[in-house]
Amino acid sequence: MLIVQKYGGSSVANAERIQRVARRVADSHQENQQMVVVVSAMGDTTDELIDLIHQLSPQPSERETDVILSTGEQVSMALLAIALEALGRPAVSFTGAQAGILTDNAHGKARIFEINAQRIQEELQQGKIVIVAGFQGMSQEGHITTLGRGGSDTTAVALAAALKADVCEIYTDVDGVYTTDPRIVPEARKLEVISFDEMLEMASLGAGVLHPRSVELAKKYQMPIHVRSSFNRNEGTMVKEVENMERSIAVTGVAYDVNVAKIGVYDLYDQPGIAYKLFKTLSEKKVNVDMIVQSATRNRLNDIAFTCSQADLPKALEIVETLLPEVGATSFSSDDSVAKVSIVGAGMVSNPGVAASMFETLVDEGINIEMISTSEIKVSCIIKADAIKTAVQALHKKFNLA
Amino acid sequence: MLIVQKYGGSSVANAERIQRVARRVADSHQENQQMVVVVSAMGDTTDELIDLIHQLSPQPSERETDVILSTGEQVSMALLAIALEALGRPAVSFTGAQAGILTDNAHGKARIFEINAQRIQEELQQGKIVIVAGFQGMSQEGHITTLGRGGSDTTAVALAAALKADVCEIYTDVDGVYTTDPRIVPEARKLEVISFDEMLEMASLGAGVLHPRSVELAKKYQMPIHVRSSFNRNEGTMVKEVENMERSIAVTGVAYDVNVAKIGVYDLYDQPGIAYKLFKTLSEKKVNVDMIVQSATRNRLNDIAFTCSQADLPKALEIVETLLPEVGATSFSSDDSVAKVSIVGAGMVSNPGVAASMFETLVDEGINIEMISTSEIKVSCIIKADAIKTAVQALHKKFNLA
Repeated sequence: MLIVQKYGGSSVANAERIQRVARRVADSHQENQQMVVVVSAMGDTTDELIDLIHQLSPQPSERETDVILSTGEQVSMALLAIALEALGRPAVSFTGAQAGILTDNAHGKARIFEINAQRIQEELQQGKIVIVAGFQGMSQEGHITTLGRGGSDTTAVALAAALKADVCEIYTDVDGVYTTDPRIVPEARKLEVISFDEMLEMASLGAGVLHPRSVELAKKYQMPIHVRSSFNRNEGTMVKEVENMERSIAVTGVAYDVNVAKIGVYDLYDQPGIAYKLFKTLSEKKVNVDMIVQSATRNRLNDIAFTCSQADLPKALEIVETLLPEVGATSFSSDDSVAKVSIVGAGMVSNPGVAASMFETLVDEGINIEMISTSEIKVSCIIKADAIKTAVQALHKKFNLA
Repeated sequence: MLIVQKYGGSSVANAERIQRVARRVADSHQENQQMVVVVSAMGDTTDELIDLIHQLSPQPSERETDVILSTGEQVSMALLAIALEALGRPAVSFTGAQAGILTDNAHGKARIFEINAQRIQEELQQGKIVIVAGFQGMSQEGHITTLGRGGSDTTAVALAAALKADVCEIYTDVDGVYTTDPRIVPEARKLEVISFDEMLEMASLGAGVLHPRSVELAKKYQMPIHVRSSFNRNEGTMVKEVENMERSIAVTGVAYDVNVAKIGVYDLYDQPGIAYKLFKTLSEKKVNVDMIVQSATRNRLNDIAFTCSQADLPKALEIVETLLPEVGATSFSSDDSVAKVSIVGAGMVSNPGVAASMFETLVDEGINIEMISTSEIKVSCIIKADAIKTAVQALHKKFNLA
């Protein structure tokens, strides 16, 4: 049995918490034969380092920023190894480079392309618990890289896949994946199992427990993820492939995202390449566009609406304004007081009418739907932000998720 | 022209000081073609990390301790690279491992056995300023190691030797090497030049500017060291080989050390192997013995006196007490209110009577000499600690060092 565990920054925020993680790892080590543990940087370490960097340069070198940020995990991993040895457990820590995690050269958002796990395997065979720095790797040219958002989860899943682990356990500050946010719906229920595809939708839609990137990787390598709390010993949620899913329930969960802004562009030329020009430019300038809706043609002129994060709104508006003449648009508008509510479920595809039920529920609550986007396993609606709580509660109830 | 510069922890203690170092490096880079800069960890970073480690274990793994401590230099080196780039100077930072600094496996006090400087040379050829983490390297097995005390100076000298640099500049908080401590003798004079051998004696005797280890290495590779202040642009002191030194002055400087304790062991058997047994045991238990004096034999019984650091005194006394029966000693004593004063000078060997002049000077001041030790280029005396200031001042005057 080989298990990969991952503990986040709040789980290793100080010496006392590192000792608690060490005890938990030691207990798991008794039950299992081999263990690899991935850790993030302690608490706010990364933010403090970023502050220091910005005192020196408004546009610091990404290569050097990675050199600095990677020290956060290097400290926490070795502290955990020391805490484990204090419990009498042989342990050894490895940086991303030492662990053989090879990435591309995209500093700050590098992608893993190969793991050469030989050193880890040698230490495991000697009975050692191997601690690996999350969030980091090494480029082929020998530079230190960091993986960007969701990096430590991705490290854990990638290592689990490379080592052919039995399971990858991700420890967070919640018990598992819920049917919706328990802060909004107290009756929200912890899911025992969720499929990769459903988790991917939940993760992308702001459920926040796992980064979509790590779920994608887990799906690719069919590596089950066990999402659990680092504060209790409860079973969490298994994220895994669920074949032939013939469930009576069509909807698994309700997700929402309030970090949404909407932009409307009016009266564009109805010509091929116009929408392409707009969204290609937004993409080149790193504006992450989420939903796109193009309205029916009136007099050979189009309206297009799209959403992005609120942080990207100023940049998106600037781009739209600059492009107005080129795309022949007459005007544009924006609204940052919107939110996205979504229902997710792999059973949806075999249950027609689910989307209609959702719309009906929102209408019954007097909530206006501004945009709609659907996939095989989810339906998302853009609504006014101040209606989000009502919407989530009503949908959770409607689809019997409690 | 290739210069290696080294800046200590106080020179890079915060963002503002790092910017000052960056400006200084940039200025040197204009004058010279190629530059390598070695940095220590920022200010108290190392102490803070050690505190954290000791919260987890009283006897932390030396391997893991090195993993943690090495992050201090990793942060400061990349911050300096970022500060240089903010000044428009292309720079790149390397950890000890990336810089190809290979060491033995003695964690916490590793010794460099080889530098594979290929990566550094490639970056230098591209016109980049190369920043290297001091104090650290990598073992042949790929573990991160630290070099222990004087480590950053040693890194700088070793790199300078490997790269065949023209000079190694060590920046400290003093102007250079003085004839003696200016805090005790205001007339103390900065030396323009000092030989490796003299510097080695001065360094070992507590002058504090350079660690003896880095001076030894510089002597071995005949690498001149320029000791300068990071707070002004004055010329400092050149430490280099001085051939055929026929100077009128016999004495170059007066050094002193107040961190000294003296132990006397009385009436040992006058048999071969007795002193060996005592000092072998002390060495095995890591007590660093400095001076040793064996008195003339009275009735086939010996007295031995030796000195060690005050920190080692309790351990030394414990060892002596345990060994008393084996070495046949009747009693022992200790005194931690002693100090060592030394005169150093390569000209001493061709100037007989220098030692006698020293003893005469001390006697004239009413200072009792408790132990004497000599080498070709120095004479050291153990005296009462409360007389050290008078002794240093009198010797500095006697040998016309002002």
